[in-house]
Amino acid sequence: MFTLKCTDGLARAGILHTEHGDVPTPAFMPVATQGSVKTLDSTDVSDLGASIVLSNTYHMYLRPGVEIVEKFGGLHGFMGWDAPILTDSGGFQGFSLEHLRDVTDDGLIFKSHFDGTLHDFSPENVIDHQERLGADIIMVLDICPPAGSADIQLDKAVELTSKWAVRSLNAHSRSGQELFGIVQGGLSKAHREKSADFITSLGFPGYAIGGVSVGESKSNTYDVVEFTVPMLPEGSPRYLMGVGSPEDLVESVALGIDMFDCVLPTRIARNGSLLVNSGRMNVDKSKYSNFEGPIETDCNCYTCTNHSVAYLHHLFRTKELLAYRLATIHNLSYVLRLMKDIRESVLSGTFEQYRAKFHSRFIPPDEETRRIQKRKWLISRKRIREQLK
Amino acid sequence: MFTLKCTDGLARAGILHTEHGDVPTPAFMPVATQGSVKTLDSTDVSDLGASIVLSNTYHMYLRPGVEIVEKFGGLHGFMGWDAPILTDSGGFQGFSLEHLRDVTDDGLIFKSHFDGTLHDFSPENVIDHQERLGADIIMVLDICPPAGSADIQLDKAVELTSKWAVRSLNAHSRSGQELFGIVQGGLSKAHREKSADFITSLGFPGYAIGGVSVGESKSNTYDVVEFTVPMLPEGSPRYLMGVGSPEDLVESVALGIDMFDCVLPTRIARNGSLLVNSGRMNVDKSKYSNFEGPIETDCNCYTCTNHSVAYLHHLFRTKELLAYRLATIHNLSYVLRLMKDIRESVLSGTFEQYRAKFHSRFIPPDEETRRIQKRKWLISRKRIREQLK
Repeated sequence: MFTLKCTDGLARAGILHTEHGDVPTPAFMPVATQGSVKTLDSTDVSDLGASIVLSNTYHMYLRPGVEIVEKFGGLHGFMGWDAPILTDSGGFQGFSLEHLRDVTDDGLIFKSHFDGTLHDFSPENVIDHQERLGADIIMVLDICPPAGSADIQLDKAVELTSKWAVRSLNAHSRSGQELFGIVQGGLSKAHREKSADFITSLGFPGYAIGGVSVGESKSNTYDVVEFTVPMLPEGSPRYLMGVGSPEDLVESVALGIDMFDCVLPTRIARNGSLLVNSGRMNVDKSKYSNFEGPIETDCNCYTCTNHSVAYLHHLFRTKELLAYRLATIHNLSYVLRLMKDIRESVLSGTFEQYRAKFHSRFIPPDEETRRIQKRKWLISRKRIREQLK
Repeated sequence: MFTLKCTDGLARAGILHTEHGDVPTPAFMPVATQGSVKTLDSTDVSDLGASIVLSNTYHMYLRPGVEIVEKFGGLHGFMGWDAPILTDSGGFQGFSLEHLRDVTDDGLIFKSHFDGTLHDFSPENVIDHQERLGADIIMVLDICPPAGSADIQLDKAVELTSKWAVRSLNAHSRSGQELFGIVQGGLSKAHREKSADFITSLGFPGYAIGGVSVGESKSNTYDVVEFTVPMLPEGSPRYLMGVGSPEDLVESVALGIDMFDCVLPTRIARNGSLLVNSGRMNVDKSKYSNFEGPIETDCNCYTCTNHSVAYLHHLFRTKELLAYRLATIHNLSYVLRLMKDIRESVLSGTFEQYRAKFHSRFIPPDEETRRIQKRKWLISRKRIREQLK
């Protein structure tokens, strides 16, 4: 299902073949959590140049329910999206939404975030849900240990992830739908090795690196990616789950990653944080009330073509719903263009020049923002760590 | 500025000529309260077929401020809207937002709804604000007496509205911008007559009927329109302020009205109430979770072309921002198409057939909804009535 077209250093350009069309890689997957990339519909996302989207099994399972999506021809029919789709297993949300109630050898029990009902995900029923949702690529149920997990927790996470991978493979039968394996193991090279050895021995058509977007620092994330990528087969696509800031995309491609998903570009857009070559523009700030011209002069997105920064500032200040849409369009357009440029640079053997140029302009988000984000993660992970003991 | 093309009974079809282009009438003006028709940008509104929009002086004066809008080339430049714009005087919001503090012979004092600061609107400064906002059509400051006002309150409202009309005319100097007069007088024919006599004697290029969207019943509204329209000159456009449900549009055109504005289609859209030939579809209801097909089979709007009712239901249930946009697109498209069909029927001399067909399909919203709406209005009007005593 994957053709590796070209490498440049460790960076790769390829094509992912699916029933709903080809995906040029490296690829960023916008996240349609509940069947909509927030503020956008499928035509909008297609117009932005996305060739694949991700949707969350956890959310679609709870609402509208797998039966309804299935009745409408799966996610493709329900969302009106004709191109490739990937669904995650739902396990990550079961953990991350702080509604995890129990983890057993057979799966996990969680409380619905909106009506409080209890549900369980097992390796088998998660495959069933995803088969009925009908995505082109689906994921095994795994255990994603939180940042800072001790060895004993990593042992258990790797062990269960391995067992569940076998059960997932056995449960999967729908043709025209590829099941990817997931490598876990936290920051520990030994655990990643153990996990990768086992998971790759099962012969999945693609492999994900999980557990790096759970509050780890950027340098830790890059370390894990750096030592885990060589453990994965060269001929298969490599998917780094939950990563997607511009700087992380560039650095992860440099380490050999092919696929990404992340809510960051769309989430920060709704907070008025716009992606620009030099980092982030917080359009809500007073200094932008008067600002003529677009967000980024070299951006040809709909928002930059049609609207001034001052207008966006006004829309954010007055909480007009249009603000969130225009900001989302810009940020997604920014990331998708970045991926396209990265791919072209790999194909032309100039990736390192591209990467250097990117970093020469880029000022990373300030440490305070990072610290707040991390603290939030650590708190939400506390409960999960308890469950894994 | 107005060409009356054709009449059919009392119904009229005409063309409003402005510096930013022609507006075929009868016309509905979508409301861009804060410089955006909620959830949409100017290209969206243009794509829906609107030829003119209304923006609120009160809101734009408070945020972003007249200076900023002026710097960006007025509302046209700031919003990126090249077609005609009408601004109201701001007086209605000063009243209706329950922030009215005082009414004097010189204008009104109100408290900003978002930061609590005090501001005053006078006939003169409201003209200045509107000249700088740069709309094609602007409105005089008037007194809009609440539903159920006693004669003594109507006396005062008509008297001040008359005085202020003269002051507004004297203050207005910007060329290429037409100033409309407003007739007030509540439900009283005598007061309407007095107001109309005076206002029309001043020779405005267009006339509005104000004070009918302030909690009056539909039959009262129709009565007022019926006896007020003949008091207005035939050659000038007649604008019924704040009215815009489909049934009211049809009935008011039948009485000789040419222009309308109303937040109803966009506001109810955001509550999941969709305009259909038979009345309203509350898409949030459980029975729609499974509903295949579009909102209305004969609707060619973007939403109906691309999405099922079940998908919309899901988006509303999960509070996805996309829901509000798709519903807004449908409702505005519905109303704008209605106006186009009405106009065509007038031009072809078949308006009464069109009107009969409209009503044969239509089931009015239930009385309970109406009662709730009315109660809200009455409460918010209590304070205003005090001020007018």
